[in-house]
Amino acid sequence: MTINDIARMAGVSKGTVSRVINHNPQGVSEQTRQRILELIEEVGYIPNRVAGSITLARTKTIGLIIPDIQNMFFPQMVRGVEDCAMENGYTLFLCNSDSNIHKEQQYLRAFLEKRVDGILVNTCGELEDRSLYRSVCQSGIPMVLLDRKSRDFTDKPGVYVDNQEAAYSGVTHLIDTGCRKILFLGGPKGVYTTGERLKGYRQALREAEIPFQKEYITYGAYSTASGYERVRHIIEAYPETDAIFAGADTIAIGVLRALRELNIPVPGQVSVLGFDNIMLSADLTPTLTTVAQPIYEMGYRAARKLLALIGGDPEGAKSECMSTTLVQRESTRSR
Amino acid sequence: MTINDIARMAGVSKGTVSRVINHNPQGVSEQTRQRILELIEEVGYIPNRVAGSITLARTKTIGLIIPDIQNMFFPQMVRGVEDCAMENGYTLFLCNSDSNIHKEQQYLRAFLEKRVDGILVNTCGELEDRSLYRSVCQSGIPMVLLDRKSRDFTDKPGVYVDNQEAAYSGVTHLIDTGCRKILFLGGPKGVYTTGERLKGYRQALREAEIPFQKEYITYGAYSTASGYERVRHIIEAYPETDAIFAGADTIAIGVLRALRELNIPVPGQVSVLGFDNIMLSADLTPTLTTVAQPIYEMGYRAARKLLALIGGDPEGAKSECMSTTLVQRESTRSR
Repeated sequence: MTINDIARMAGVSKGTVSRVINHNPQGVSEQTRQRILELIEEVGYIPNRVAGSITLARTKTIGLIIPDIQNMFFPQMVRGVEDCAMENGYTLFLCNSDSNIHKEQQYLRAFLEKRVDGILVNTCGELEDRSLYRSVCQSGIPMVLLDRKSRDFTDKPGVYVDNQEAAYSGVTHLIDTGCRKILFLGGPKGVYTTGERLKGYRQALREAEIPFQKEYITYGAYSTASGYERVRHIIEAYPETDAIFAGADTIAIGVLRALRELNIPVPGQVSVLGFDNIMLSADLTPTLTTVAQPIYEMGYRAARKLLALIGGDPEGAKSECMSTTLVQRESTRSR
Repeated sequence: MTINDIARMAGVSKGTVSRVINHNPQGVSEQTRQRILELIEEVGYIPNRVAGSITLARTKTIGLIIPDIQNMFFPQMVRGVEDCAMENGYTLFLCNSDSNIHKEQQYLRAFLEKRVDGILVNTCGELEDRSLYRSVCQSGIPMVLLDRKSRDFTDKPGVYVDNQEAAYSGVTHLIDTGCRKILFLGGPKGVYTTGERLKGYRQALREAEIPFQKEYITYGAYSTASGYERVRHIIEAYPETDAIFAGADTIAIGVLRALRELNIPVPGQVSVLGFDNIMLSADLTPTLTTVAQPIYEMGYRAARKLLALIGGDPEGAKSECMSTTLVQRESTRSR
């Protein structure tokens, strides 16, 4: 039993049967659709899934991989993705990779098996499983990168900010307000965003002719605990410190807590600059100066781009670089 | 092999086989259902999915509905659910209802269509769509309630804490440390957790023979903004206030910020008590005394319970009440 037999029995074209199977309602009356579906059920026709790579019908699902929903940066982004998905009748698979490539791979495999219509990924690095890499490419499932570029999927569109430019503007603000001994408490070493923000930091120092000191740089998790622990050690080693650029607001929260416990006034003795502008940054004591990313909007736009790709709209194939803004609050000096 | 062959071999009608395949238990005895399922497995019959309505195989997906992932209480809970799901080869649909019953219904419909293997829900109230309610019941899809009891699904198991007892222990701590004029900044009116926490508050006052003053009670969103805005008004109206019981840590964050702006010392003049113990509560200024719920664990256990139900384990059918602990930090006086 083939699609041709079904078409013959129903007295319609092969294209019509195909459209019904693929839930594409264009040019098929409801009556015809019902008749074909009944016929298909009656004869027990099972469509041929060529090489496992052709999906019969839209599953109306999107798969999203992020490092960790508990990192305060991600809930807003996920919410943006989900709102856009929901408005378009899609449901969202949420997956936490813990920046572990094996977990990321496990989820990509699940997405292929579950035949998601599209994939959004905040990737943690290169896939070790190259056969999986090829399967993802060959599956034809649209993919959009979110927040971080990928070394594997270099031809996939993404939604980013210019992390270098953003960090440059933040560190320049520190320098403009008189800071010279600026520590950088970066995110994980090797992660795209960490590297770009370090470039921005170095560029700002270079333009101000402040020598770069590599011992002022540390790497660690994008977490409050990591900021808290790192700052206690580094401030002891470099008591001349007059500013700290935290590679993320979550890191800055830990920094503020540690400085408070050490009775180091902020910004009197040390200015603190964050990155992200998570919702909470305006509620901290002192309120946090930070480089704002449009977090919710990035998620929303990435989802919209993915849905465009799923719908065959070429607009979806273009990457997008969104703007950041420096938000000055109490944790840095004013000019 | 068609549905007709299965029906003939089982000695039942085609409709009966169809109902079994569709998880519709109406008019089919458990014995017949088992027999048909075994037969289907034995002959390796693959139901025709083309008609869009028949699945037999597990989809290995769980649907989760929460109010809003941006509320800092939920990321940890969602992470607990997802970790348990992942360990068991399941993938998680994350859905935000915004405590809007229409969105909750829309997601429940999507879960039925997508044939999730199980549903976890932090419900926002009674379903208006009673036909959907019946469909959910009849679908036979296991359901576990999370954090909030449901007026509809009273026979479904859930994972909760004893919110009344928890609030009672927190407010008793305020009273023990000398507070008498205690405001309650509750969550949304009509929501299960708000009502239970108010009961605990009243119980503590009653035992200490402190008169209950209903003007000390306000309701609002479980959000920082709601705490911030409410406290500014109420503290002006009741300057005798010596403590604030915030119905959630997110509310308490806004309260602390407002009190700081008003130059009201915490806990010197006003003690502040939270509820939840979100990760951030130890990083606030001052650090927040709060009633700790096992947030991650609740999510994890609810998922485990759901997987037990999916696997037919009767242990899954029992509700679970987890314990809370008072965590004393800087925002309340010590005894």
